Amino acid sequence: MANIHVNKNVHPFDKTRFEALLNRRFFYAPAFEIYGGVAGLYDYGPPGSSLQANIISEWRKHFIVEDHMLEIDSTIMTPAPVFETSGHVARFADWMVKDTKTGDVVRADHLVKGVLEARLAGDKEARGLVAQPQKDDEKKKNKRAAKAATAAAQLLSDDAARGYEAILAQLDNYSGPELGELCRKHDIRNPDTDNEVTEPQQFNLMFTSSIGPTGQHPGYLRPETAQGHFLNFSRLLEFNNGRVPFASAQIGRSFRNEISPRAGLLRVREFTMAEIEHYVDPEDKRHERFHEVRDFAVDLLDRNVQASGSTQTRKIKVGEAVADGIIANETLGYFVARIHQFLVKIGVDPTRLRFRQHMANEMAHYATDCWDAEIQNSYGWTECVGCADRAAYDLTVHSNKTGHPLIVRQALKEPIVTERLVAEFNKKVLGKTFGKDAGWIQNTFAELDESRLLEIQIQLAKGSTLVTTPDGRDLTLTPEIVTIERKTFKQSIREFTPNVIEPSFGLGRILYVLLEHNFWAREQDIERGVLSLPPVVAPTKVLIVPLSAKEEFDPLIQEVSSKLRKAGIFSRVDDSNTSIGKRYARNDELGTPFGLTLDFASVQNRTMTLRERDTTGQLIGGIDEVITVLIDLVNGTTDWTEACKLLPAYDGIQAID
Amino acid sequence: MANIHVNKNVHPFDKTRFEALLNRRFFYAPAFEIYGGVAGLYDYGPPGSSLQANIISEWRKHFIVEDHMLEIDSTIMTPAPVFETSGHVARFADWMVKDTKTGDVVRADHLVKGVLEARLAGDKEARGLVAQPQKDDEKKKNKRAAKAATAAAQLLSDDAARGYEAILAQLDNYSGPELGELCRKHDIRNPDTDNEVTEPQQFNLMFTSSIGPTGQHPGYLRPETAQGHFLNFSRLLEFNNGRVPFASAQIGRSFRNEISPRAGLLRVREFTMAEIEHYVDPEDKRHERFHEVRDFAVDLLDRNVQASGSTQTRKIKVGEAVADGIIANETLGYFVARIHQFLVKIGVDPTRLRFRQHMANEMAHYATDCWDAEIQNSYGWTECVGCADRAAYDLTVHSNKTGHPLIVRQALKEPIVTERLVAEFNKKVLGKTFGKDAGWIQNTFAELDESRLLEIQIQLAKGSTLVTTPDGRDLTLTPEIVTIERKTFKQSIREFTPNVIEPSFGLGRILYVLLEHNFWAREQDIERGVLSLPPVVAPTKVLIVPLSAKEEFDPLIQEVSSKLRKAGIFSRVDDSNTSIGKRYARNDELGTPFGLTLDFASVQNRTMTLRERDTTGQLIGGIDEVITVLIDLVNGTTDWTEACKLLPAYDGIQAID
Repeated sequence: MANIHVNKNVHPFDKTRFEALLNRRFFYAPAFEIYGGVAGLYDYGPPGSSLQANIISEWRKHFIVEDHMLEIDSTIMTPAPVFETSGHVARFADWMVKDTKTGDVVRADHLVKGVLEARLAGDKEARGLVAQPQKDDEKKKNKRAAKAATAAAQLLSDDAARGYEAILAQLDNYSGPELGELCRKHDIRNPDTDNEVTEPQQFNLMFTSSIGPTGQHPGYLRPETAQGHFLNFSRLLEFNNGRVPFASAQIGRSFRNEISPRAGLLRVREFTMAEIEHYVDPEDKRHERFHEVRDFAVDLLDRNVQASGSTQTRKIKVGEAVADGIIANETLGYFVARIHQFLVKIGVDPTRLRFRQHMANEMAHYATDCWDAEIQNSYGWTECVGCADRAAYDLTVHSNKTGHPLIVRQALKEPIVTERLVAEFNKKVLGKTFGKDAGWIQNTFAELDESRLLEIQIQLAKGSTLVTTPDGRDLTLTPEIVTIERKTFKQSIREFTPNVIEPSFGLGRILYVLLEHNFWAREQDIERGVLSLPPVVAPTKVLIVPLSAKEEFDPLIQEVSSKLRKAGIFSRVDDSNTSIGKRYARNDELGTPFGLTLDFASVQNRTMTLRERDTTGQLIGGIDEVITVLIDLVNGTTDWTEACKLLPAYDGIQAID
Repeated sequence: MANIHVNKNVHPFDKTRFEALLNRRFFYAPAFEIYGGVAGLYDYGPPGSSLQANIISEWRKHFIVEDHMLEIDSTIMTPAPVFETSGHVARFADWMVKDTKTGDVVRADHLVKGVLEARLAGDKEARGLVAQPQKDDEKKKNKRAAKAATAAAQLLSDDAARGYEAILAQLDNYSGPELGELCRKHDIRNPDTDNEVTEPQQFNLMFTSSIGPTGQHPGYLRPETAQGHFLNFSRLLEFNNGRVPFASAQIGRSFRNEISPRAGLLRVREFTMAEIEHYVDPEDKRHERFHEVRDFAVDLLDRNVQASGSTQTRKIKVGEAVADGIIANETLGYFVARIHQFLVKIGVDPTRLRFRQHMANEMAHYATDCWDAEIQNSYGWTECVGCADRAAYDLTVHSNKTGHPLIVRQALKEPIVTERLVAEFNKKVLGKTFGKDAGWIQNTFAELDESRLLEIQIQLAKGSTLVTTPDGRDLTLTPEIVTIERKTFKQSIREFTPNVIEPSFGLGRILYVLLEHNFWAREQDIERGVLSLPPVVAPTKVLIVPLSAKEEFDPLIQEVSSKLRKAGIFSRVDDSNTSIGKRYARNDELGTPFGLTLDFASVQNRTMTLRERDTTGQLIGGIDEVITVLIDLVNGTTDWTEACKLLPAYDGIQAID
């Protein structure tokens, strides 16, 4: 394929035209639009659905098939006890503030971000510096920011500007009370009304419901698919013949009742996720395929750099990052690389992709380390994939709550042989002598450490030992009742709770940035856009364009589409009553990478032209010859440059016939 | 493939072993099992997920690709006004009764069915007739029915037995109050407690929630995906260039808060549906591909036969059924045939498949006609696909509610030219003469019919005409003010609300009956089952079985699996430390249709054996030769009988090496 990023640099990203295209061609649209819409809910139309299905299909191949993951499909509706145990009921919340007069609700961190960014933009304006085109664009879309900017189009002191930038660099690290303090200290108000806001309060993001006709069983819509994996851990482990490491994977809908959804598909209340839970031995987080990614370089933005107030990434090989302790272990590193490869394969611009480590206060309650794949777009840097080490958190809490062991039992190659002192009781005498104290005595001895047992052994050798009950009675034990002996123990099974590494993909966000990164327009047709989607995800791979809807083309259309279908490639026919050029332009908007033109020459000579979307270059050849090249192009086993060597260029004369 | 239905007849269906297999191999399991489970919620494990994904993939090809449907993906969370308009808030309900003492809740129709069936079974027992093995099986599973049966193991009068059978034949046709009457008349009580039950009350089946942080926006989880299609109708029509007929399609999760879920995957609270909404001209419900299915025969059970108390189907060609008015139109008929073909393609036994027409009281509130694809299984005949004519119901109510026209505007090939009498006013004089009555006069004249206008024309020719206002004043109109003239009107656009034909698939139900229909066991290994799933839906297509886990087989394993992958076929390797026979048997349980054995002969001579699951027959050949045959087998372009002609049978000697 032509290098689409070169094209894009020629034409700066035009968000208005971009959004118009997505809306006009029904990639997606606000759900319930004719009812006035509901914030944060979107429906995907035919090209959006197809793009999403293709992303999912490629995800399945790239992750599930490639690494033999176990796919599952668990329910969305979840009884309350599950999320009480997992900690979501208590802690899966955002901080919101209310306008003190209107009662309008805003997410606290978004408020601080919007106002401070607007003030910095106003400061730049006041200093006569040109604001970033991106910021301008954002201003147009964001009423709040725009108002705030207008209000604050004034100079800031250098100290204030630097202070704001430092706050923004670690915004995700503030607690609720700290966000409230920032609002008071920097006089941050609701920009819509200029009213003060309340202290931040927590708002749980889970949608609630109730299960069954009696209303007795409260339930939640899952905010992530992960718990469905963990609860099935024992079954999955058994399916994997009891061996770790292995991974489960799930693609499905999740729900978060966002406080004030905005930014289109980037922050929504219902979304499709793809999640992997990779279970590893906590003492061995190596990955058997790590060598394949060791030399793969990624852009990292670690926790320490952010804490210093900077957002400067550095390019580093995954192997080095793990060796230097920047990325905690091989498995996390393996997934960071694999996520990067996946995103670039489906069409994300690698120069606008970075991995940012979560700061301490920012991490979800279950995570011990987390790297987000962030992708730059017109809204800024957006988290599209999270890659968290959830340690043993989830399996442990569910196991403790239910009494169902969620553990791995591993036969040790070499049994571990240990010797230690143990107390041996003559239970008959013990019971006769101490009655109901007998149990307490045994439990107490079982918990004594080696040195204490040694003392007792010595005392017993001298005749007897004394123990004191919790209620203060002294009991005398003799060697007739208890002896302390050194015994050998052989442990042939090791039991452990695995740790979980979780790559978690927000497919809607990925879909959106993918569209942004691949949108541009041709000099000669600036009104219409082109979506340079890679063939692997393009909604339609091949458009068949007969010169007209005349019946004489039907047999050839049938032949070509059937030959393509046999190769697993689904084509569409556009025989509408408009020029070939217009039909192609319409399909450039949908991202269709290849076109086949059937004209009178096709009928007479069995030739056909092949058009490439990004270059608009055309080649010509015999029908079967062209199909062979096309199949390789769609499957990615060849590219346009190679295809141009295999087939002669088409000079355009025949089509006029 | 071998004829699996022959195999099944040899070994009667063993439900206990069948369920044990599904559970042991984690096809699916109760969700939240370690928390004690929640009725009606199930998780799919790896083979179940994979089977479901393959059914969906084939569904996409069979319906969406084949008929160029427009796929969409709309949200599950739905604001209340949508379902208020669609009628679901008022009418999407089941009738439930409560135990008068314990308050336990039961679905009224299920109660009547369970008790009457149990009494009929008890009657048969009392008469010394052998009960159906199937009933026996059901009895074991259904505590209520079992208790009722025990309680009622006594003779019924011939009249009573016939009466019960008649009730059961049209059970779906009773209203709530009628079900209550049946309970009183036939002394139907809660079989768990023998207590009487309350009058049936309606219980709405939609799960409720609320959207946003303020709790002001009530929402429902969709009980079907259909409304998401209808609300997007204008956008879809535009995407289809304004033309009907066309269809939209959607695959997604829906939710119904069932009163008392039971029967495993057949009645659940959360399920994956695949729905098609096919929009047609209400005056022309022909289908352009109807000729392809005209001679295709299906088993029909129409409304009249059921009303007569019978459940006798008749086999009839779709073309005849439409011609005879049994199936209302070609489009319904086309889908009935296509649904049948799809179900059989994925492995449903065609002899246990029928299409049953809904009875008048049974139909959903939006439907004008409905045919269910019902599939026989151990629970009886189960609706797996509904095929309803929703007429213009949904588009009309949403359009009326929102004021957004959901219509088709069609350019007429021949403009419709009509002549009619119209009143022409001299507005100046009219206004001067009658002031504020002028508007009323014009509106009144606009609504007069042809004959009345003719009368007025005659009166005006004689000098004047009188009209009487609502408040009783007589107004005199002269030819100076109004004339009646014959005018010609030309209509070049026709506007209409399309009708909707809706095939709606419950994928979980289909998946379950598919598993039942394809389960059997070999004489020599009755403990283990075989799932004779067609290759198109089998979770794994090919199992690669090296003689051992020795490294010398690795290069061959890599070569074979990579060649298969290039052909789009994903294989699994089983190199576990157990006999080849056992490894195959384990994969027979998962429905893996083909196996490849790699042994020392493979390393030395590059030969490989190919095993077929149902016959356990084995063939041998060169590696590439076997792969070629295998690809055709998996893709369904050849069958095992043909394969046996292409490759020599394997005598089994080499594998022992």
